[in-house]
Amino acid sequence: MNAEIISIGTELLLGHIVNTNTSFLSKKLAEIGIDVFHTSVVGDNTRRLFEAIKQALGRADIVITTGGLGPTVDDITIETISGLIDRRSIKWIRNRVGTAPGLLIDHIDRKIICLPGPPRELIPMFEKDIIPYLKKGSKSAWVIKSRTIKITGLSESAVNKAVKDLLESKPPTTVGIYAKLGEVDLRIMSKAKDEKSAQAAIQKIEKKIRLKLKSHIFGYDGDKLEDAVGKMLAAMKMTIAVAESCTGGLLSDRITNVSGSSYYFRMGLVAYSDAVKENILGVSKVTLKKYGAVSRPVALEMARGIKLLAGADIGVGITGIAGPTGGTKAKPIGLVHIAIVTGPKRIAKECRFRGSREEIKFRASQAALDLIRRNL
Amino acid sequence: MNAEIISIGTELLLGHIVNTNTSFLSKKLAEIGIDVFHTSVVGDNTRRLFEAIKQALGRADIVITTGGLGPTVDDITIETISGLIDRRSIKWIRNRVGTAPGLLIDHIDRKIICLPGPPRELIPMFEKDIIPYLKKGSKSAWVIKSRTIKITGLSESAVNKAVKDLLESKPPTTVGIYAKLGEVDLRIMSKAKDEKSAQAAIQKIEKKIRLKLKSHIFGYDGDKLEDAVGKMLAAMKMTIAVAESCTGGLLSDRITNVSGSSYYFRMGLVAYSDAVKENILGVSKVTLKKYGAVSRPVALEMARGIKLLAGADIGVGITGIAGPTGGTKAKPIGLVHIAIVTGPKRIAKECRFRGSREEIKFRASQAALDLIRRNL
Repeated sequence: MNAEIISIGTELLLGHIVNTNTSFLSKKLAEIGIDVFHTSVVGDNTRRLFEAIKQALGRADIVITTGGLGPTVDDITIETISGLIDRRSIKWIRNRVGTAPGLLIDHIDRKIICLPGPPRELIPMFEKDIIPYLKKGSKSAWVIKSRTIKITGLSESAVNKAVKDLLESKPPTTVGIYAKLGEVDLRIMSKAKDEKSAQAAIQKIEKKIRLKLKSHIFGYDGDKLEDAVGKMLAAMKMTIAVAESCTGGLLSDRITNVSGSSYYFRMGLVAYSDAVKENILGVSKVTLKKYGAVSRPVALEMARGIKLLAGADIGVGITGIAGPTGGTKAKPIGLVHIAIVTGPKRIAKECRFRGSREEIKFRASQAALDLIRRNL
Repeated sequence: MNAEIISIGTELLLGHIVNTNTSFLSKKLAEIGIDVFHTSVVGDNTRRLFEAIKQALGRADIVITTGGLGPTVDDITIETISGLIDRRSIKWIRNRVGTAPGLLIDHIDRKIICLPGPPRELIPMFEKDIIPYLKKGSKSAWVIKSRTIKITGLSESAVNKAVKDLLESKPPTTVGIYAKLGEVDLRIMSKAKDEKSAQAAIQKIEKKIRLKLKSHIFGYDGDKLEDAVGKMLAAMKMTIAVAESCTGGLLSDRITNVSGSSYYFRMGLVAYSDAVKENILGVSKVTLKKYGAVSRPVALEMARGIKLLAGADIGVGITGIAGPTGGTKAKPIGLVHIAIVTGPKRIAKECRFRGSREEIKFRASQAALDLIRRNL
């Protein structure tokens, strides 16, 4: 079985809205074994919509439209569909969230499904009503499952090199590589006759990836690095405090995005100025003068200072230059020193990041979380 | 002139990537007066891509493809195009960021433009090479301009009520309303014969909106609330320090996202525990006991404490319950107290927010920035 998705709306053609409905529907259809070979967008224009639906009916078993439903003049789906099929064969689908119902049409050996445009209406309608309906009527011989392995502390090319042979895997089970900010994802995807076989094929490759990338893997699917660190801190009953300069509060923000972080997060300090580093954190004037604020010794003294001040088990210090101004030849934009002080350990790392101010802030917070994770 | 966009990539049909290229290109084309009536996605399949390009050439002056360029086996654009046109008429467009060049083809009275898939390669190529080229060759009779007015501190329905008549404006100049997290946007869009007329029509409506929404407007187009606050602080040569509990560093993070914030941002403190509030900020034990940590008096004492500690002109205190746990009947999840202390002023505001932990954090930071903005 295969489906084609037609999104309706001039606002999509004007670029005011990003078409997230199509990616949501495509993903869900793949999971239940329905191929999508074409998706398209047309404006609020009856003639062009008519042509698009007619063409789709010529090459797909299922035609799904999104948008163009409801009471306003722009909403043209029902009018257009009526020109193609007998209006009496339309079944209504209840809209739990909004006002405009969906439509379900059995048209000879084809199905036409019309969904509302707003994602908060489309998603529950598709999940609760359409998926069970399609599964029941589906003669699909396969399912697609995927698993994402999340890696940090390695560049995309280093990950690529490490798993080169796996990236060349041929269908039905493939591996894709995706570089994100401060993170590289490997996505294993398997097409198989049932869920169990797909999961087994994925696990086989996942095991190989784990053997190659070991501790560089911090999580799976929706996991975030701060979740991984939070789980470790909670399990070890250790507390943490952070002193940030260039990250400006982002590290504290990310740590406290995790529900339950109040059990292990003691305190965060954003020490932008030398005065705050000296007076509140107790960084020595001599160190500041000798090495400058952006230096390994200052990062270490910041970590020690916040650990003492907060009475925490772990102190973290970050100092660097986020840009876009303030860089010098010796200390360029993107230079960041990260330090961790625990009871027995004093660890410091020098990093050089590229990107915008916000990107450098994020990469630095990511590197700090990773340094914590690897040293607990 | 009209254009059609064809995005190439099986990963788009599987829903693994959201198609932001199409919305970017659509918006830019509208701005220079080029209509887009159709956009579509096809997989890495030569036959289907061939059909899609052929169909597009039948109904559009300009056919733009994205993706499917480069050295890997999946990259099928050049092969497919070669089946449609004389390969010698292909011009290469340099890729400033990545390796795969773009293609530019004058095919009888049509143009075919092939762009790389990664947005960070596509965007500069389109802006620097394609837009000037299209503008030169364009016989377009109109342009579209838009202006976004950014509002905070009012709900979507309150904004709706205030500008109801304007939201009913008919083309060529229309107004749309868009609710975002902690913000409501009004977008004025005008289609006119030239840029000057479009801008004049926009300004006329913008003036009416400004009269109705006054100080609720914090910026335009790409402006962020932290930029607006930063500009005011810099202009007034005032310094600020913030003590955060439930926002966990997010307010400091947002303030320091603004380049140049080191001139006015003195210090941030994330005081999650009562101990930090007491020992570092000097919040009195009596106040904490009598009113609880999430209370107006504690927010005020936090603001005063951080102002003193940092030697800043303005102190900000935030205390609340971000959830998903920790709420009670008297102090539910989403309750946040925000306080500002300047020389002469002591202001406190009680807010009740809905949403996830991260949404409540963001809404609280937004309300705090807005409170600062309105009281400078």
